[in-house]
Amino acid sequence: MKNTILVVGSVALDSVKTIHGSTIRSLGGSAVHFSLSASQFSPVKLVGVVGEDFPAPFRRFLTRRNICLEGIQVMPGKTFHWKGKYDRDFKNAITIATELNVFQHFKPKLNAGHSECGVLFLANIDPDLQRKVLDQMGKPRLVACDTMNYWISLKKPSLLKLLKKVDMLFVNEEECRQLTGEYNLIKAARLIMKMGPRSIIVKRGDAGAMMFYKDNVLSVPAHPIERVVDPTGAGDTFAGGFMGYLAAAPDWKNFDVIRRAMSYGTVMSSFSVEDFSVKRVGGLSRPEISARYNKYVKALAIK
Amino acid sequence: MKNTILVVGSVALDSVKTIHGSTIRSLGGSAVHFSLSASQFSPVKLVGVVGEDFPAPFRRFLTRRNICLEGIQVMPGKTFHWKGKYDRDFKNAITIATELNVFQHFKPKLNAGHSECGVLFLANIDPDLQRKVLDQMGKPRLVACDTMNYWISLKKPSLLKLLKKVDMLFVNEEECRQLTGEYNLIKAARLIMKMGPRSIIVKRGDAGAMMFYKDNVLSVPAHPIERVVDPTGAGDTFAGGFMGYLAAAPDWKNFDVIRRAMSYGTVMSSFSVEDFSVKRVGGLSRPEISARYNKYVKALAIK
Repeated sequence: MKNTILVVGSVALDSVKTIHGSTIRSLGGSAVHFSLSASQFSPVKLVGVVGEDFPAPFRRFLTRRNICLEGIQVMPGKTFHWKGKYDRDFKNAITIATELNVFQHFKPKLNAGHSECGVLFLANIDPDLQRKVLDQMGKPRLVACDTMNYWISLKKPSLLKLLKKVDMLFVNEEECRQLTGEYNLIKAARLIMKMGPRSIIVKRGDAGAMMFYKDNVLSVPAHPIERVVDPTGAGDTFAGGFMGYLAAAPDWKNFDVIRRAMSYGTVMSSFSVEDFSVKRVGGLSRPEISARYNKYVKALAIK
Repeated sequence: MKNTILVVGSVALDSVKTIHGSTIRSLGGSAVHFSLSASQFSPVKLVGVVGEDFPAPFRRFLTRRNICLEGIQVMPGKTFHWKGKYDRDFKNAITIATELNVFQHFKPKLNAGHSECGVLFLANIDPDLQRKVLDQMGKPRLVACDTMNYWISLKKPSLLKLLKKVDMLFVNEEECRQLTGEYNLIKAARLIMKMGPRSIIVKRGDAGAMMFYKDNVLSVPAHPIERVVDPTGAGDTFAGGFMGYLAAAPDWKNFDVIRRAMSYGTVMSSFSVEDFSVKRVGGLSRPEISARYNKYVKALAIK
């Protein structure tokens, strides 16, 4: 169970419109995007909640991708539904409707198999719930979490308690600044590391990602994509590739391992934006991933 | 003269205010920032205009940095003066005053030594003037130019004529989109390549830079800087490092050479933002540049 990742987060149905088309009630949610990406590298167990309307084909699809769904609770009512759109710059998701449905009553419960997982990823949910998950865990060798502006504004004390107990934090630039009041990302990341996490990963969209670990600062570019169709879930897909690779490695604290993980995260998220929902990442083969990874790494190896 | 770079552009006095302080009538201008960066790698000849007020110490300082100032005309009146400020995000320069002074009467005149230079960089000036410079040149082996939103709006036909005759174009993201009407940078760069240049370099500030050459797309991250003091001239400093390195190389069309040039451009621009005006770049030693270059390249070499 050392290499198995437990992810706790949202399972959703997404209706998304972009300049390239639209999709209705397609498979989404942070835990889903994360799982499909991470399961390319390591076994994944997912804890989440769905309503009675959650389509059986989606469940079968996830199971086929090496994701254990024992931890999915089915509650009376409807599945979390997010409806949104993007302008052609794809910079900001514009929310049209957020129907939390059964997700507002989500109380993550772990079974023995869950609590013995070696790696834990707390996707973006209420920090009170993230802490309750952590309390139910055995002794994971790596704990990472995500969060969002909403929780930083409304539940900062709870989030700060959580941060004391996690090894890694995933944030975007805005969240990094909001959490610290510091504009410069290097300074902000150093301040967050004093709050607990020993590593900070800053997701920057088409500007790539930065990683802070001890005294190391690593900035990597995004893999350029000519036809961005839907950026929904790209950040969770990045985290999935990153954590999936780390979980499979014998020592995640090795800086070379972390640098490779950054590249796998980048490559996985570059696939995710190429189609709606999980269409692209859900259908990926390992040779496809390796080919793009090798291309990405080779371009950056300046001789 | 094969490796000598001729740069034609503005020589200015800049008054700049940022969160870290301010500077009054310090040395600036696109041709100056470019020259101080490029001259670390190759000999540079500068063609520009100043007023009678241009300080002699500035002239001596540039000459000491391997920059030939024979092409600087002194005209009656005052030197071009730009006054501006930046907010703490450093994203956009806010112009307080632009006093063109003698610069509005600038008519670049080349002597025999200028027209025999092997490499030409047309910094951001009126495309009519850029074309007149090109007409006075012999047979340079590499011609690159910069431009800005102002000329794309007001003098697009002239700019398009120029683009037919240049090998490389430096633009920022916004200019790239404005020139083509295409949002995606890969698609936009391909469209610009059809206008003439065989390579496009997109400067993206703290998101790094992208380079398009034939079928190659290269995206490199910025070198992270903890204390950004003044971003004025960072783009020209990037171009200077890039062109300076290319001019010194036997074959600029080699993709490995271009990739190294991208890294030198990145490293030089990372220095430039660390202090006001040309303080940082003007005082750099080659070992300092090599040390940061090696650090930058090593971080990106994912093993």
